[in-house]
Formats: sequence, structure tokens, C-alpha cells
Amino acid sequence: MSTTVSPLAPKKYPKMPAVEGVRIATAEAGIKYKNRTDLLAMVFDPGTTVAGVFTRSKCPSAPVDLCRQNLGQGKARVLVVNSGNANAFTGKKGRETTSTTAQAAAKAAGCASDEIFLASTGVIGEPLDPGKYSHLLAGMVKDARPDQWTEAAKAIMTTDTFPKVVTATVKLGDTDVTLNGIAKGAGMIAPDMATMLSFVATDAPIAAPVLQELLSKGTAKTFNAVTVDSDTSTSDTLLLFATGAAAKRGAPVIADAKDTRLGVFRRALNKMLKQLALQVVRDGEGARKQIEVTVTGAKSARSAKRVALSIANSPLVKTAVAGEDANWGRVVMAVGKAGEPADRDRLSIWFGDNRLAVDGERDPAYSEQATSTYMKRDSIVIRADLGIGRGKATVWTCDLTKEYVAINGDYRS
Amino acid sequence: MSTTVSPLAPKKYPKMPAVEGVRIATAEAGIKYKNRTDLLAMVFDPGTTVAGVFTRSKCPSAPVDLCRQNLGQGKARVLVVNSGNANAFTGKKGRETTSTTAQAAAKAAGCASDEIFLASTGVIGEPLDPGKYSHLLAGMVKDARPDQWTEAAKAIMTTDTFPKVVTATVKLGDTDVTLNGIAKGAGMIAPDMATMLSFVATDAPIAAPVLQELLSKGTAKTFNAVTVDSDTSTSDTLLLFATGAAAKRGAPVIADAKDTRLGVFRRALNKMLKQLALQVVRDGEGARKQIEVTVTGAKSARSAKRVALSIANSPLVKTAVAGEDANWGRVVMAVGKAGEPADRDRLSIWFGDNRLAVDGERDPAYSEQATSTYMKRDSIVIRADLGIGRGKATVWTCDLTKEYVAINGDYRS
Repeated sequence: MSTTVSPLAPKKYPKMPAVEGVRIATAEAGIKYKNRTDLLAMVFDPGTTVAGVFTRSKCPSAPVDLCRQNLGQGKARVLVVNSGNANAFTGKKGRETTSTTAQAAAKAAGCASDEIFLASTGVIGEPLDPGKYSHLLAGMVKDARPDQWTEAAKAIMTTDTFPKVVTATVKLGDTDVTLNGIAKGAGMIAPDMATMLSFVATDAPIAAPVLQELLSKGTAKTFNAVTVDSDTSTSDTLLLFATGAAAKRGAPVIADAKDTRLGVFRRALNKMLKQLALQVVRDGEGARKQIEVTVTGAKSARSAKRVALSIANSPLVKTAVAGEDANWGRVVMAVGKAGEPADRDRLSIWFGDNRLAVDGERDPAYSEQATSTYMKRDSIVIRADLGIGRGKATVWTCDLTKEYVAINGDYRS
Repeated sequence: MSTTVSPLAPKKYPKMPAVEGVRIATAEAGIKYKNRTDLLAMVFDPGTTVAGVFTRSKCPSAPVDLCRQNLGQGKARVLVVNSGNANAFTGKKGRETTSTTAQAAAKAAGCASDEIFLASTGVIGEPLDPGKYSHLLAGMVKDARPDQWTEAAKAIMTTDTFPKVVTATVKLGDTDVTLNGIAKGAGMIAPDMATMLSFVATDAPIAAPVLQELLSKGTAKTFNAVTVDSDTSTSDTLLLFATGAAAKRGAPVIADAKDTRLGVFRRALNKMLKQLALQVVRDGEGARKQIEVTVTGAKSARSAKRVALSIANSPLVKTAVAGEDANWGRVVMAVGKAGEPADRDRLSIWFGDNRLAVDGERDPAYSEQATSTYMKRDSIVIRADLGIGRGKATVWTCDLTKEYVAINGDYRS
């Protein structure tokens, strides 16, 4: 954890309500960090369904393997998360660790070990000794309380500078249901996925396949549209749990993704995923500015997203924003290098409302002063119109600062 | 030009000999920089052939367009290069500038305007006024001298901290021929191409199509295997000129790329291209260390190169090297995110001769101390063996330092 909080941190944090059917405990296991919590157990009532999306890395961590395997059941009773060690690229030892942890958690909760979900974040390649924390799980499961959401968000932080929490209460049928979400991010953030770890829970009664469809579709324009440094983690995990406890209060059980009663819930979930993803960006390592990149007029939406990511991942674009320099020439460069259909002479570029380039050259009406003033904001919007089609996409990133280099030049040591 | 020379600069520079048939002049045109040369004219005797390779950007600069067009002729009389302004994304004005410049150079040399080649490097999007320098060309062509190669390399620098020059003299048949090369690089360097500007000239008598084949093949493992920051310039240009003057001294005229007499020359050219490309890396913006990345055991050579570039372009790998941290977990991450066939449990990783990981986990024999000592060197070799095939590739990059961010955060202003 950094001692300096990102200037883009929220001005205030929401008070996180309980989600019926979810209890939480955190502990100081001393896995790597001292004098802070680094272990989280989230305990779900029987009947809780689960969905997940994971890193597309070809070298996923052992916990990702375990989650993918257990997801087939669609049922969850305990989530165990540690920070400080990713248990990634740890070979046979890594699998032994996830197995030992899952068994300890299952024993503590009195459930099957395939109802356990795990996530780990931190250094890659160091064996994670389950002896450091598995003995704590029984007590944590027993003592877990419903009101610990912010504590949960703190326990999973690594180089994050603030905890990421979002809550929403919406109607499902005529009944109020709650969604709570937490996330941790900071570095090694890029689609797909775009956060290392995020967990959302609701008391809505939603079947696992429906939950999976909601989550998979919801990530495309949220977590899979943010990038900090183009580096995709081995550990990216987003899990969505539904305890179903609201059914007792009259909420309808949703077993079909096309159920029209799901509309409000879906929008709330998508909004929450976007808020969590943006908080990850706003706490990107060394970030001083949020950057929104919209590409319009591309050949297709897919092409637009590739061009947008080319701009958002360009070190030269990101350093220019850090330097408050409206260097739109670098946006031209990033459009050009994306390898997607583009026509130099139809390209237009905006920073905020300031159009800097049009029809393949500098806008004659461009005001250096107005744009320079705009660049001092802490949230910058870049738009590029390719002028050749109707495809559009928006992605988010942060600027690239000396602090990013400092944080990552001595992270492990 | 930076005031601090890269610690990776050559300890000494070669004395550049003349290349028969080539004369050079430089001038202070004041296009952007003050008190330094920023204009180069390279004048070739009649009969000079030319080949070129260029950026694959979809938004190429106006000079790149002109070179591509004139390359069809295969004949060159004058090369004009300016630094300080890239004449890229300058629309109709940009084309007028290249046209005006080519006409002025052609008039000065008494040749056709399609025998003129142009290159520009510097800021993108600012119109380049040919009135600033075109009046100088007549005098420069008249006064050009054979011994100005190092001066030529200096005139084309932007954020480079040292001039890049290489020379070689080899046999073509029984006759000595000379190759001289210059380059400039620094930022916005990535395949394909991997330098902004490089020019090589020889007195060997080689037909244009043969020259083109030599150059196109020669760049794959040299200029197209280096990356500084993954950002591909709009202006990347590599031109190879052959005056043929050595024919008078008995050198055979080469009209067929399969001519066996070309072997020594080809090897010398490839070596020169690699040396120039490596100098570009060693002068990457803010570079303190050269990084060589070799991937072996990939499914194919193409796949190996993609994985190698994923490692070489990873900000987290590059900052780790900057911090002298043998954080091989980030190499695992970069292999995983490349999207190429890989098997986590067969992966091995070396830093120099230190094997850190084998069979998908940390090498039990790994010595933290030996590796830490190794990381203090100014040239780091990273090798990843994927263990699934016979494909291999090597690419080169530099570390990512705070200086890179500083240089690019206030380059334009």
C-alpha cells in the first residue's frame, strides 16, 4: 500500500450496507505485508450462486485454475482472498496450496471443497505457504459479520492507494435488492480482464447461468475497456455471487436471462462494474489524470476498440497527458500504428471540446490557449473520428508518470 | 538534443571514410532548434540506385509518401533531411512542402524531381514551411563534401543523445567497397520499422531491385526487431543508396540477388543494420540498460517474435530492469498476455546464465544473489523457453526509466 493517496481518489466513500446472506472477516496473516490485513474470507449462505470471468493469460495463476474448475458447479459458500502473493507460476506447489486452502475453508464452513473460490494478488513466482493463513480460516468463517465490506476492500489492496467500494439498491420485481462490489487494481491492468480482482455480491435470487450471462456481457464495456499499462495479469478475477436471500422478502427468482424483470438489475450491475473499473483506472500506479478515449467513425465497433486501445496504451500519449501537453500528433501516431483501417486525410481529433485536427491536418480554428487550459484538468477526454464508418468504442486509462516507474522499479525488493 | 549523453553511448566513434560518389552538406536552418544543424543534403553521382523500407503506419508522413512514390524509379540524386518537424499529418500543406523541397533540390542538382528523396523528423502536425530552408539547398548541393558523415548524423538528431554512425569496407569480387550508415532514433521506436530515420550508402554497383531485396530481408532481424516504447512513428524511413562508383575500380556490377559474389557484402550490410538498430535502442529515451530478449521453443519463429515483443514492450518488465530487479514473474506475465501458444508448466526463464524458472515454477537452484549482481550490468539478456516447439527469435529494447517520462512529458512545449 502506498502512503500517498491518488489525487483521483473519491472525495467520499459510500457507507456499505449489508448484503443479506453474506458475512465477511479479514485478518492480518503476515503473508508479506506487516501491520495490515491481507486475508479476506467472504462467507455465503447455502444456495448462493456464482459466476466469474478471468484473465485470458496463457499463464494463469493457480487460484484462477481452481475458480474455473469450481465454477462448473455454479455454487459458492466461501471466497478466500489473500494479498501479497499471487500464487502464480508456482507449479505443483501452487496447486497444493489452493487445494489445502480450499479444504481448510470447506471444513470451516461445513461445505464441499468445490464450493470454495480463491483469489491471490501480489508477487508472481514465489510459493505461497498455506501454513501462514489456513489455520485462521475456521475462526474467520465463524466470526464473519455482514458489515465488513470496506474492510474487505482494504484487505485485498496491494499498490492500491484507496479501497474501491460501490453499492446500489434497486428493485427486482417489487422487492429491494442490494448489490455491493469491491475491487483492487493498480498495475498490470489491461484487458482482458482489466482488474486483478473484483468481487460483487447481491441478495437477488438469480440462477448461475443467468448470472454468468449478465457478468460476461457486463464486462465488455467496463472491466474489459480499461487499461493502465497494457500488461495483463496472470490473476485477473471477477466473481459475482447471488445469495438469493431477497426471495424470502418476495423477490422473484430469475432463471432466464431474457426475463424482463431483470432490466433494472442489469443496468445497476453494469453501472457498478463501470464504477469499479474506473476506480481501478483512477488508482492506476502513479496516475494523476484519468483519460477517456473514444473512437468514432471506425469500420466496426471491434476496430474502434482496437484503435482506442492503441491510443490508450501508447506511452507517448500517456506521457503527453501527464505533461499536460495537448500533443495530438501522438494520437495520430497511435491511430496509425493500430493496424486498423484508417484514412489519414479523414481523421479528426478532439481533446475535450477542442477540435485540434480535422481532415488530416491541424484545425485552423484550434486554440492553443484553450486546449492548454483544458489539459490541466484531472480528467481528459480524447476523441478520434476516423471518418470511414460507424464503429465506435470508449476505453479508459490513466496518464504515465515518473511515479509509475518508481513504483514498478522497486516493487519486489 | 539532450545535454546528458546516454550511458550506453559508444566509448568511441569510428572515423567515417568517404563513400565514392557521395557528397554531404549540413546547415543551420533554424526550423525548430537553435545553434545546431538541422538540415542535411546528401548528393549522389548520376547512376546511383536506391532502395527503401518505411513505416507501416496508416498515417504516414508526407515525405514517406514522396519516397514511396519516387522509389519506383530506383534512381537517386539528392537526399534532403530535416530535424525538428516531421511534416506528418500536415495534409495538403505537407504535400506542397515536399513538392517545393523536391523541386528546389532537383534544380540545385540539375536532375529530375523524382530522383529526390526526403525525410523529416520531429513534431507531428505542425506545418513545415519550406521557405525556412529550401533557399539553402543550392549552396549545400554545390558545397557538399565527401567527409561529412558524422556531421550528417548530428544534423538529423532530435532527442538522440549521440550521433549514430557505422562503417565497413568489404570485398565485392576482388574490389574493396565501402558501406557507411547513419541513424537517428530515441522515442516512438517500434517495429515496423524500428528507427525513425536511417540512411546507408555504398559505392558498390548494385541494381535497384537487388538493393531492395537486400534491404527488405536485412531489416527483419535488425531494425524490425528493436523497440523502445512500442510506439510506431509516422515517419520511419530506411534508405539504401548505391553509387556504383567502385565499378571503375573493377567491382562487378550485381544485377541478380542470387549472385554468389554478394555474400560478403550482404553479411556486412546486415551487420551494419543490426549495429545501427542497436545504437537506436542504446539511445532510447531515458535508456540506462540494453535488453536482449530471446524466445526459444515457440511454435514458430513468428510466434516466438510476438512473444519476444510482448516481453520487450511490457512496461512492467522494462521498469523491473530499470530497478535492477530480476522480477521474472513479469516475464511470465508477458508470455501469458502475448496470446501465442504457450504452456505455463513447460516455461523456463533465464536472466543471463541464471535460470530463474523451470517447468512452470521457480528454479530450486536459483541464486538471488548471483542474479542481483547480474542485474547491475548495463546489458541484460532475458531468455524464455516455451518448451513446445522449435521457433526462436531475438529482439532488443531498453529499460523504462523516469527520464523517459520526463523527456516525453515536456517534449513539445
